[in-house]
Amino acid sequence: MGITAEERPGGTAPGSARAPGRTGLWLIGARGSVATTATAGLAAIAGGLAPATGCVTEQGRLGALPLTAFGDLVVGGHDISEVSIAKRAELLVESGMLPLRLVESVRDELDEADERVRPGYYPAGPGSAAGHAPGGAAAVSQADAARRLARDITAFREDHGLDRVVVIDVASTEPPIDDRPEFADPALLLEALEDPSRQILPPSSLGAYAAILAGAPYACFTPSAALGIPALRRLAEERGLPTAGQDGKTGQTWLRSVLAPAFAARGLRVLSWAGANLLGGGDGATLADPQAVAGKLQSKNRGLQQLTGGATTPLHIDNVQDLGETKVAWDHINVEGFLGSRLSLQTTWSAFDSMLAAPMLLDLARLLALADAAGESGHIAALGFFFKDPWGSDEHSFAEQTRLLAEWAEAASARVASRSGAGGGSRP
Amino acid sequence: MGITAEERPGGTAPGSARAPGRTGLWLIGARGSVATTATAGLAAIAGGLAPATGCVTEQGRLGALPLTAFGDLVVGGHDISEVSIAKRAELLVESGMLPLRLVESVRDELDEADERVRPGYYPAGPGSAAGHAPGGAAAVSQADAARRLARDITAFREDHGLDRVVVIDVASTEPPIDDRPEFADPALLLEALEDPSRQILPPSSLGAYAAILAGAPYACFTPSAALGIPALRRLAEERGLPTAGQDGKTGQTWLRSVLAPAFAARGLRVLSWAGANLLGGGDGATLADPQAVAGKLQSKNRGLQQLTGGATTPLHIDNVQDLGETKVAWDHINVEGFLGSRLSLQTTWSAFDSMLAAPMLLDLARLLALADAAGESGHIAALGFFFKDPWGSDEHSFAEQTRLLAEWAEAASARVASRSGAGGGSRP
Amino acid sequence: MGITAEERPGGTAPGSARAPGRTGLWLIGARGSVATTATAGLAAIAGGLAPATGCVTEQGRLGALPLTAFGDLVVGGHDISEVSIAKRAELLVESGMLPLRLVESVRDELDEADERVRPGYYPAGPGSAAGHAPGGAAAVSQADAARRLARDITAFREDHGLDRVVVIDVASTEPPIDDRPEFADPALLLEALEDPSRQILPPSSLGAYAAILAGAPYACFTPSAALGIPALRRLAEERGLPTAGQDGKTGQTWLRSVLAPAFAARGLRVLSWAGANLLGGGDGATLADPQAVAGKLQSKNRGLQQLTGGATTPLHIDNVQDLGETKVAWDHINVEGFLGSRLSLQTTWSAFDSMLAAPMLLDLARLLALADAAGESGHIAALGFFFKDPWGSDEHSFAEQTRLLAEWAEAASARVASRSGAGGGSRP
Amino acid sequence: MGITAEERPGGTAPGSARAPGRTGLWLIGARGSVATTATAGLAAIAGGLAPATGCVTEQGRLGALPLTAFGDLVVGGHDISEVSIAKRAELLVESGMLPLRLVESVRDELDEADERVRPGYYPAGPGSAAGHAPGGAAAVSQADAARRLARDITAFREDHGLDRVVVIDVASTEPPIDDRPEFADPALLLEALEDPSRQILPPSSLGAYAAILAGAPYACFTPSAALGIPALRRLAEERGLPTAGQDGKTGQTWLRSVLAPAFAARGLRVLSWAGANLLGGGDGATLADPQAVAGKLQSKNRGLQQLTGGATTPLHIDNVQDLGETKVAWDHINVEGFLGSRLSLQTTWSAFDSMLAAPMLLDLARLLALADAAGESGHIAALGFFFKDPWGSDEHSFAEQTRLLAEWAEAASARVASRSGAGGGSRP
Ligand SMILES: NC(=O)c1ccc[n+]([C@@H]2O[C@H](COP(=O)([O-])OP(=O)(O)OC[C@H]3O[C@@H](n4cnc5c(N)ncnc54)[C@H](O)[C@@H]3O)[C@@H](O)[C@H]2O)c1
Ligand SMILES: NC(=O)c1ccc[n+]([C@@H]2O[C@H](COP(=O)([O-])OP(=O)(O)OC[C@H]3O[C@@H](n4cnc5c(N)ncnc54)[C@H](O)[C@@H]3O)[C@@H](O)[C@H]2O)c1
Ligand SMILES: NC(=O)c1ccc[n+]([C@@H]2O[C@H](COP(=O)([O-])OP(=O)(O)OC[C@H]3O[C@@H](n4cnc5c(N)ncnc54)[C@H](O)[C@@H]3O)[C@@H](O)[C@H]2O)c1
Ligand SMILES: NC(=O)c1ccc[n+]([C@@H]2O[C@H](COP(=O)([O-])OP(=O)(O)OC[C@H]3O[C@@H](n4cnc5c(N)ncnc54)[C@H](O)[C@@H]3O)[C@@H](O)[C@H]2O)c1
Ligand code: NA
Ligand code: NA
Repeated sequence: MGITAEERPGGTAPGSARAPGRTGLWLIGARGSVATTATAGLAAIAGGLAPATGCVTEQGRLGALPLTAFGDLVVGGHDISEVSIAKRAELLVESGMLPLRLVESVRDELDEADERVRPGYYPAGPGSAAGHAPGGAAAVSQADAARRLARDITAFREDHGLDRVVVIDVASTEPPIDDRPEFADPALLLEALEDPSRQILPPSSLGAYAAILAGAPYACFTPSAALGIPALRRLAEERGLPTAGQDGKTGQTWLRSVLAPAFAARGLRVLSWAGANLLGGGDGATLADPQAVAGKLQSKNRGLQQLTGGATTPLHIDNVQDLGETKVAWDHINVEGFLGSRLSLQTTWSAFDSMLAAPMLLDLARLLALADAAGESGHIAALGFFFKDPWGSDEHSFAEQTRLLAEWAEAASARVASRSGAGGGSRP
Repeated sequence: MGITAEERPGGTAPGSARAPGRTGLWLIGARGSVATTATAGLAAIAGGLAPATGCVTEQGRLGALPLTAFGDLVVGGHDISEVSIAKRAELLVESGMLPLRLVESVRDELDEADERVRPGYYPAGPGSAAGHAPGGAAAVSQADAARRLARDITAFREDHGLDRVVVIDVASTEPPIDDRPEFADPALLLEALEDPSRQILPPSSLGAYAAILAGAPYACFTPSAALGIPALRRLAEERGLPTAGQDGKTGQTWLRSVLAPAFAARGLRVLSWAGANLLGGGDGATLADPQAVAGKLQSKNRGLQQLTGGATTPLHIDNVQDLGETKVAWDHINVEGFLGSRLSLQTTWSAFDSMLAAPMLLDLARLLALADAAGESGHIAALGFFFKDPWGSDEHSFAEQTRLLAEWAEAASARVASRSGAGGGSRP
Repeated sequence: MGITAEERPGGTAPGSARAPGRTGLWLIGARGSVATTATAGLAAIAGGLAPATGCVTEQGRLGALPLTAFGDLVVGGHDISEVSIAKRAELLVESGMLPLRLVESVRDELDEADERVRPGYYPAGPGSAAGHAPGGAAAVSQADAARRLARDITAFREDHGLDRVVVIDVASTEPPIDDRPEFADPALLLEALEDPSRQILPPSSLGAYAAILAGAPYACFTPSAALGIPALRRLAEERGLPTAGQDGKTGQTWLRSVLAPAFAARGLRVLSWAGANLLGGGDGATLADPQAVAGKLQSKNRGLQQLTGGATTPLHIDNVQDLGETKVAWDHINVEGFLGSRLSLQTTWSAFDSMLAAPMLLDLARLLALADAAGESGHIAALGFFFKDPWGSDEHSFAEQTRLLAEWAEAASARVASRSGAGGGSRP
Repeated sequence: MGITAEERPGGTAPGSARAPGRTGLWLIGARGSVATTATAGLAAIAGGLAPATGCVTEQGRLGALPLTAFGDLVVGGHDISEVSIAKRAELLVESGMLPLRLVESVRDELDEADERVRPGYYPAGPGSAAGHAPGGAAAVSQADAARRLARDITAFREDHGLDRVVVIDVASTEPPIDDRPEFADPALLLEALEDPSRQILPPSSLGAYAAILAGAPYACFTPSAALGIPALRRLAEERGLPTAGQDGKTGQTWLRSVLAPAFAARGLRVLSWAGANLLGGGDGATLADPQAVAGKLQSKNRGLQQLTGGATTPLHIDNVQDLGETKVAWDHINVEGFLGSRLSLQTTWSAFDSMLAAPMLLDLARLLALADAAGESGHIAALGFFFKDPWGSDEHSFAEQTRLLAEWAEAASARVASRSGAGGGSRP
C-alpha cells in the first residue's frame, strides 16, 4: 500500500517540491465538535477568510518551514453519528462558539467534507445504527471490520490524489479497558481479530489498526486505548509508520505544563495543585460517565505528577451542560518557598475547548506528513508537544517541548529536502 | 583595589579551590524587609536550620556548580533607618511572615549583621537624620559622600577577609528622575559630583557609584535610577566590574514572563493583559506615592509589552496596608484564538513578596561572585533571569532565561576552573 | 399639563382599571447600548418571544401587583447619535451580546422606536451635529432648548395616547461639574437659563429640566449631574413629580451591596475592599476619559464606604476595548474575624453590562408609573434599590432595599386601587 | 433531672436579673479545632484581651439585648482524644491559625477547661481507648453509656453553680447512617438502648440523648445524625428542651446563602453553581473518607438547591493537608439574565474554618440560654441562621435569617424580662 509521487494525478508543483505534498486528514469522529471546527477552520484559512491563529506550524521557527499548504489538506473521516458536519456547525453557531458568517461562507466545503465521511465502527449500543457498525453484528470479525475501515482510507487517498493520509482519532472518549494477554502479542491479537465471535479491541484501537492496514501515519487526540495497546504499536512500527499521541493538551493541562516547570526553575516546591473542570457539550456529556472520566483524569494528572515530583493533585471534571461548548477550569496551587513560607496561585481558564483543539489537528496533519515524508517511523517524541500523555517521551515541560518540536521539525525538513533532491519525498 | 587570594587571612580550603571563595554581600537597604529576610534566611540555611528552597543556585544544572558556600557569605550594608535588623525581623514575625522560632534561632547572626550596617546616604527629607546623611548637608560634595560609602565597603572586605564584596541595592524605590547632560558624559558627571553645592545623583545612583569606587560587582534589585545612568555604567565598565539589574522579577511580572511566551508558542494572540496589585508593608507605603509608583509600573510593563507585541496592558498598584507583607496580584488575560474566538485566563497570586525576593539576593551574590571570579565585566545578560528590566538583554521569556542562565553559569564555572588551575581566581 | 384618564383616546380596558395604564418610556440616550437593549427586549417580551428574566417587577411580591403591562409600554427618546437603534442592535449582535434571531424578530419595533427618537441637546463638541444641538449655538438660551425637549416629550404623550411618560436618562456619563451659586437657588437658575449667552447646565441637567417642564416622572440611570442640582430638585418637587436615581446598580456595586451587609451581620470587619473593572464598548470609551471616570468612581465607592464603615477601598476602571460589551470586575476583600484572624474573599464578575441594565429600565418605567398613579412626588426612596447612589435614602444594603421596595410597591398599589375606585388614577 | 433556680448555689446577681444567667457550654469534641478555638477565644474576650469580632450576639439588634455575659460562660465537654486543649492550641499556633501571644495569655484557662473534659463515647475503632469508651464494650448498654455522659453534664452544672448547661456537638463528622424502625418510635428505641448487645445509635445521637437526659438545651454543629433521629427529637420535645441545628454555616455555604437570594431578587436565573472545597486539618482528614464526606455534601447542597430552584450544583471536597487549617473554596456561578444572556460570578473564599465556627459556638450558647430562659422548647427555627440544614425551618436566605433571628431574640428577651419580673428565669 502507499502510493508514490509518480502515481499521483495532481502532484504538487515543482516549485514547492520540498513540501510534503497533498495530504489527506482522516478524522475518526469527523462529525464531532473538534473535527467540525477543524474542518470549518481549514476551509476558512485555505480560503483566505481567517488567519491561522492558534496553528503552531505558522509561528516562529516552524512557520519558516516548507510544510503542506493549508490548501493542500483534504478532510474526510469516519463517524457513527447521522448529524452532518454542516448541521453540527450550525449547532456550534447556536452555542455561540462558531461565528455565523464564517459557517455560512464555508458551507459548501462542509458539505463536501461530509460527503467524504464513511460509517465508523461501533460494536453495539447507543447511537450505533446497524448500518453504521458492520463489525457490530456477530456475523463479521473485527479483522473484517478493520479491513473495511482501511479500504475507506485507501479509497480516500486514491480518489483525491493524495500523497498521503494522516489519520487522527477525535472520537468520543472511551472508558479505560482491562489488559489481556493478546494485547502483548501481535500474533495472538491478529488471531483473535479474525474470530467473528470475539470483540477484543475497543473501537479506538480498531481505528488505529485500520490506519496501520492503510499505511497511514496516525495520531490519537483522545485518551482512549487506541494505539496504546503494545501489540498494535508493534504492528505500526513494523509497518514503518510515524505515530503520535495521546490526548490533546489544550487547556488546563497545557497551562499546568507551562507553570509547573517554571516553579521548579525558581526552586519553589509545589505542595498541592487542586483542579476543578466544568464543561458541557458532547465531551461534557461523555465524561458525565464515571468510567469514561477515569481515563481522562489519569491522562490529565500524569504529567503534573511528574512535573511536581509528587504533589497532592486532586482533580475533578463536572458535566455542566449550561456552559455549552465553554470549558472553565480552576486550579489552586499551594507552593512552599523560602524558609518554609507559602505562596498560592489560582488560575481560572475559560475557553471554547474545541477552538483550542481544532488548530492542533491541522498542525498534526502537517507535521505527521512531514515525518512521513522524512521517512520517520514509530512514536515521534517531539510531537509530545501536543499531548497530555506524550508517546515516546517523558518530557512534559511545555517550554522544553517547544524547543524540541522546533529542532525536530527543522531536522526533518532538512531530511525531506535532501531526500527530494534525491528524487524521493514519499514512503516507498 | 581588590585583594588577591594570597592576601586573604582565612581563605577557603584547598579542596574547594575552584569555588569563587568567601564573598561579602553588601546590601543597600540592609534593614529593609527584603534584606532582613535574606539575612535571616542565610543564617538559617548556613546553620542547617532550613533548606535553600527558592534559591535557584541550588537547583538543577546550577546546583551542580561549585559556587560560594552559603557559610562563606557575610552580610553587611548601608541603611538610613535606625530600626535594627533584629527588630525588623520581629516586626516581620508579627506580620505573620517570618516564623518566630527561626528568628529566635538566628538572633545572634542578625545582631552581628546589624553591627556591620553603616549609615546610608540620603540627601534630605523624611527619615534621614543628619547623622545618617553626611552628604545631605551642603557642606560635602556627593563625591565625598560616595567615597565615604566606598570606604565602608572596602573596610568590610578587609575586616572580614573577603575575596570580594557584591553590592546589591534593595533600598526603597525612588521616583523616576529627569535626564541631564551630565548623565551622558562621565567627565561632566565626575565634575558635578565634586561640587558641594550640587546634588546631581539620586541616592541609588550614588550607591552604585560607591560600588564602582570600591571595585565591587553590583546588582540593582530596585527600579530606581541607580546604574541606569549611562555615564555611571561607562565608569563601571571601565573599572571592569560585572553588573546586573534591574528590579527583581519575583511575582506577578515573573508569572507574566512565564505565561506570555507560552501563549505565543501556541500561536495564540494576547489582546489585553490587565493587572491589579495590592500590597502593604514598607514597599506598599513607598508606592502609595504616585511618583514612586510610576517607575515601578514602567518597569513592570516593559517586558509584557515586548512579549505580547503590544497588547493593551493597564496596570495598577494599590497600597492596602491591612495586607501586611502579603502581595496579591490579579491578572486578566484576554486572548484571541482559532477563527477569532476568545479565551480568557485569570490568575491570582498571593505571596509574601520579600520571601520571593530574599533567596534571589543570595543567588545574585553567588552568581556575581562567579562572574567576578571568571573575570567577566559589564552587564551580565544571563542574570536578566532575575529582573523585570534585564540589563544587557532583550530576552524576557522566563523559560529562555532559565536556559541562558544555566549555560552561562556552566561556562563561567569552567573558566574559573581553568583560571584557578592557572593560580588565579580573583580579579587582579 | 398631564392628561386625565378621560382624555385618553385608547385607555386600558376596564378589567385592568387598577393598573397604572399606558406608559411612555422616554429614554435620553435612546440609541445607546443600554437603551437599545431595553427597546429590543421590551419588544421581545411584549411579543411573547422571551420571558422577562431580569425584571424585578415580574418576581416575588412585585410580580403579584397590577403594574403596567409590557405591551402598554411605548419607547421614544432623545439622542445625539445618527446611528439608528436597529443599526446599534446589529452592532450588539456582532459583539456577541444580542442574539441575531431576536434582533431580526423585533426589527420592525426597533425601526418604529427609532422614528420616535428626537435630536438630543448637546452644546458643542464631539458627535454633536449642528442640527442636533439647537441649544448649542449661542443663538438660543438653554431655557429655549429645554422647552424644545419638553415639547418632544409632550408630543410623544399626546401622539400615542399615553397616560403618562416616564423619562429615564441613559446617556453617556458626563464629567463631574463644579458647584455654582445658581444651583442652590431656583430663581437664579431660571434666570440664567434664559440668558442665550450662558450654558449653565450640563446636558443631563437640561434633560432633567425638560422632564420637569413636561410633567414627567424622571429617573437618572447615570452618574451625571442631572437632577442632582438642588435647584432643579426643588423645581421637580414643586411640580409634584416622582423622581428616582442615581447611577444604575447593576454589577460589581450591586454585588458589594449584597456582600458587605452580610459580613456586618456576621460581626466580621471588612478591612479593605479593592476593585478592578475592565470594560469596553461605548461606556468603556467614555470612561477612558479620567474626568468622566471620576464621577463614576465616586458614585461606585460611596455605598461601600458607608456599608463597611470606612474600609480601604481602592477602585479602578480600565478601558479594555477587546472585551467588547463584556464587563469584568474583580474584587479582593480582606476581612478581620475572630481573634484578629484574617479571611479573604475574591469575586470575579463577568457580564454584558447592558443586559443587566436594560431590564431595570423597564422596571423603573413600571414603578415610576405606579408612583405617579399613586400620587407620589419627590425622591422615591424605595427605588434606591436600583441605584448606586440612592436619592432620598441612605440604605445601601440590597437585602434591605429588596424588602423596602416590595413594601412600598404594595402600599402604592393599594393607594392606586383606592384612588381608581374613587375615579382617579392619574395626576390631576 | 434539671435543676431549678432555687437549687443553684451561685445564681446571677439581682442587677442582671433579666439576663439568662451563668451558663455552661458543654462541647462534644471539646479538644477539637473548633472547640479549642472557641475556648481560647472565650477566655480572651472575657479577659478583655480581644474584641468579640465574629460574634453575632454582639452586633446590631442582638448586641442590645441582655444576654449571658462572656464572663458567665464556663466551658467543659466530652472528647475521645488524649491531646489536651492547650496542646491542641499549640498545634493551632504552629499552623499559623492562633496567635502565639493569645494562647500564652490564656493558657491557665485552657488548662482549667481541659480538666473539665470527660471521656466521650466511642463504640470501638480508631482513637478510642477502652477507658474512653465505656459504652464501647459489649458489657454495657448504650443506655448506660448515655446515663454516664448525662451524669458528666449534670455534675458540671452542679460543680460550677450554673443556671443551665448548653450542649453543642462539635465532634468529628460521622458517616450517614441507614434508617431503622426504632428511629421512628421512642419506645422501641429506648428498649433497644437498654440491650447491651446492640449499638443502635451513632455516637452523635448518643450524645444528643445524653443532653436530653441531662435536661440541657442542645445544638448540633455537625452534619452527623445526632438529634436528626425522629424518636430522639420526640424525646427532646417531651422533655421541653430548646434545640438547634444542624451543621454550622460558616464559609462557602454561608456565602451561597447570601448570594443566591440576591440573584433571585434581581429576577436572574441561576443555571449552575459548581463548587470546589480544599481543606486540611482534622476536618480535612475526616472528610477524606468518602462515607463521611457524603453527609457533608448533602448538607451543603440542600440549601442551594432550594434557593436556586434546582440548578446544576456539582460540589467536591478535597483533603489537601498542606493547607493546614485554611479552607479554600471556589464557586463558579452561571446565570441567565435578560433575553437569555449569560453572566458568571466566581468566588474564592479563603479562611481559617475554625475561626469562623468558634464565635458561633459562643453565640449559640448565649442564644440557647436565652431560649431556655424564655421557656421555649423544640427546634428554634430562628437559630437556623447558624446552620446549613436548619432544623424547624425552610428558610435558607441569610438576609431573611438575619431578620428572623433579631426578631426572635428580641421577643424572647422580652419574655424573659416579663418572666423574671414574675420571679422565674429558669426551666421549672
Ligand atoms: N480541547 C478539546 O476539545 C480536546 C482536548 C483533548 C482531547 N479531546 C478529545 O477529543 C475527542 C472529541 O471531542 P469532541 O468535543 O469533538 O467530542 P464530540 O462528542 O463532539 O465528538 C465526538 C465524535 O466522535 C464520534 N464517534 C464516537 N464514537 C465513534 C466511533 N467509534 N467511530 C467514529 N466516530 C465516533 C461521535 O459520533 C462524535 O461525532 C474526545 O475524546 C475528547 O476527549 C478534546
Ligand atoms: N519581591 C520584592 O520584595 C521586590 C521585588 C522587586 C523589587 N523590590 C524592591 O526592593 C526594594 C526593597 O523592598 P522592601 O520591601 O525591602 O522595602 P522596605 O521599605 O522594607 O526596605 C527598604 C529599606 O531601604 C532603606 N533605605 C531607603 N533609602 C535608603 C538609602 N538612600 N540608603 C540606604 N538605605 C535606604 C530603608 O530605610 C529600608 O530599610 C524596593 O525598592 C522594592 O521595590 C522588591
Ligand atoms: N450596566 C450598565 O450598563 C450601566 C450601569 C450603570 C449606569 N450606566 C450608565 O448608563 C449610561 C449609558 O450606558 P451605555 O453603555 O448605553 O452607553 P453608550 O455609550 O452605549 O450610550 C450612550 C448614548 O447616549 C447618547 N448621548 C450622549 N450624550 C447625549 C445627550 N446629551 N443627549 C442625548 N443622548 C446623548 C449617545 O449618543 C449614546 O447613544 C452611561 O452613563 C452609563 O454610565 C450603565
Ligand atoms: N467551619 C468549621 O470549622 C465547621 C463548620 C461546620 C461544621 N463543622 C463541624 O464541626 C466538627 C468539628 O470540626 P473540627 O475542625 O473541630 O474537627 P476536629 O477533627 O479538629 O475535632 C473533632 C473533635 O471531635 C472529637 N471526637 C470525635 N469523635 C468523638 C466522640 N464520639 N465523642 C467526643 N468527641 C469526639 C475528636 O477527638 C476531636 O477532638 C466537624 O464535624 C465539622 O464538620 C465545622
Ligand atoms: Na533590556
Ligand atoms: Na442617598
